[in-house]
Amino acid sequence: MDGRAAYLLAVGTALPGPALSNAHLARRFGLPGVWEQWVDTFIGTRNRHLARDLDTGEVRYSLTDMCETAGARALAAAGVGPDDVDLVVLGTSSPDRLMPATVNMVADRLGIDGVPTYQMQSGCTGAVQALDVAHKLLLVGRGRTALVLGADSCAKHLDVHADTSGADPAEQVNGVLFGDGAGAAVLRTEPVPGALEVRHVELRLVGRGRAPGQVVEWFGAGDGPPTAPVVEDYKAIEESVPPMAQRTLRRVLDELDWQDDEVDYLLPPQLSGRMTARITAALGLPGAYEVSCVADIGNTGNALPFFQLEQVMPKMAAGDRAVGVAIESSKWIEAGFALEAV
Amino acid sequence: MDGRAAYLLAVGTALPGPALSNAHLARRFGLPGVWEQWVDTFIGTRNRHLARDLDTGEVRYSLTDMCETAGARALAAAGVGPDDVDLVVLGTSSPDRLMPATVNMVADRLGIDGVPTYQMQSGCTGAVQALDVAHKLLLVGRGRTALVLGADSCAKHLDVHADTSGADPAEQVNGVLFGDGAGAAVLRTEPVPGALEVRHVELRLVGRGRAPGQVVEWFGAGDGPPTAPVVEDYKAIEESVPPMAQRTLRRVLDELDWQDDEVDYLLPPQLSGRMTARITAALGLPGAYEVSCVADIGNTGNALPFFQLEQVMPKMAAGDRAVGVAIESSKWIEAGFALEAV
Repeated sequence: MDGRAAYLLAVGTALPGPALSNAHLARRFGLPGVWEQWVDTFIGTRNRHLARDLDTGEVRYSLTDMCETAGARALAAAGVGPDDVDLVVLGTSSPDRLMPATVNMVADRLGIDGVPTYQMQSGCTGAVQALDVAHKLLLVGRGRTALVLGADSCAKHLDVHADTSGADPAEQVNGVLFGDGAGAAVLRTEPVPGALEVRHVELRLVGRGRAPGQVVEWFGAGDGPPTAPVVEDYKAIEESVPPMAQRTLRRVLDELDWQDDEVDYLLPPQLSGRMTARITAALGLPGAYEVSCVADIGNTGNALPFFQLEQVMPKMAAGDRAVGVAIESSKWIEAGFALEAV
Repeated sequence: MDGRAAYLLAVGTALPGPALSNAHLARRFGLPGVWEQWVDTFIGTRNRHLARDLDTGEVRYSLTDMCETAGARALAAAGVGPDDVDLVVLGTSSPDRLMPATVNMVADRLGIDGVPTYQMQSGCTGAVQALDVAHKLLLVGRGRTALVLGADSCAKHLDVHADTSGADPAEQVNGVLFGDGAGAAVLRTEPVPGALEVRHVELRLVGRGRAPGQVVEWFGAGDGPPTAPVVEDYKAIEESVPPMAQRTLRRVLDELDWQDDEVDYLLPPQLSGRMTARITAALGLPGAYEVSCVADIGNTGNALPFFQLEQVMPKMAAGDRAVGVAIESSKWIEAGFALEAV
């Protein structure tokens, strides 16, 4: 874009409450010992953090709370004050309310005002959409500094009093796969040492004529009592995500004319511990260091790329390259991004 | 932006079902004759269209349905096929579901695929946010043609079986003010005769330290039964919106160095018939033709700017200028846009 560029200066993340192990979930919901083994073997996710207290049912952290913490950490790490922020973009599938948009409540908490804000409603590719919009707005001269956020919370979907012991595995698995969290990144149009240039953002809906792989409902006063709020087609997800991730990676590399052995860090989609390992193998970049955190914190949706970035940033030396891939199975979206350390 | 520009080629809109008059609402909800006079005098909204059938409670039109119709009309009016669309952006406060995002279901229905899509979660400034993002993505070279959508539906908030006869006026007023609908516009990086150049988009959160003027909740399986889904502070809205609209208009004119008497068409915020008249008077552009449709279709939220544009586009001759203003009272956002006929 005529010499313009944007750089990722720093990231920050936030997790609600303590880590909850599979053993903790098994005890809480009265599940048999074999369940824990089954999760270890077929899912591979060991811990997650949840905004809702599983014992009392209380929602202890709102999405705004988590975004505020992650945002404040990213701003502090970048040495950027609230008055320096020229625009804010949040990607989430689970806003606290329909209105006001959570991004505006977060801006208020952080002391950011008088600037444009945007909130992308999206599943697992919302963080990439937020990065994309912030990146393009900076390129077009809309400002110098952007705060990008991605966050998700299952709290409002999680009925802690439901009897799940008799539920089929497809329903039980949601309680195991997902975790709550928030992430944030500061982008700026000028680099600093250690910053990562945003080289490319890839985003493509490929859902034409395909049934959604995941449906998440919301309910209002005009609806009956909430039932079947979350439905997933795990078979379709398992079949589709690895080739989608592969195509996305290829397009990102082709766009930049990067060779396979020039990628130093790979940030793969994070569905579950096991599934991520399978996807990474399919991506076929054996020389790249794989950054995965799903086993430790679960699939945190739109927060996840920031947790990966938090791991990778301190490792990257000038010239190092990282590629991230995110796949949304709801209506099938391929998303990716490429970063290069300056 | 270095000579780049984007032009609005055509708009399309959609309304669900027949027009519902105040008399119809009064009959349906057993309200006294004085109620109808009260609405005429203090609200000034005569008709609206609703996605939910007030008699049966059935939701007859989804947001996807309305967006599909509006989008198809805009594409047809612009002479643009689905394969020519390079990106889609929707602004709404009331998506059909949390996932998939409605924008992706609409893209599928219209035959649009393989492109980036974005859905802005926002109150009454979501259409301007969608216009802003589409405009900037076109300026930055992300594509040649964008489909921009704005839509809202009260259906999921509307309990047709609730006894509203004893409700206080602040609760009753929501059923009168709002209407459902969708709008769409096609933007392109090259002009055609009759097209409107997007000269400027203004967007500014000004909510720091201010309580929200409107709160709209969503509910999931982890919540209790839906209660108090929509809360509004009408006093704050009535006090704040006119000066906010004034400031927005001033900033748009200052940005372009347009004089007051150089604005030919004014598209004011549309809260209610009466309120809109008051806002327009405060804006102080007596030479501009005011485009208002709120009395006939109610406040259709993010669809409204498209209904205004649909009225104004055929009237505008080369060189004519239009300014639109939208104000979001949820967390207080000032938004505006300026168009000039080529």
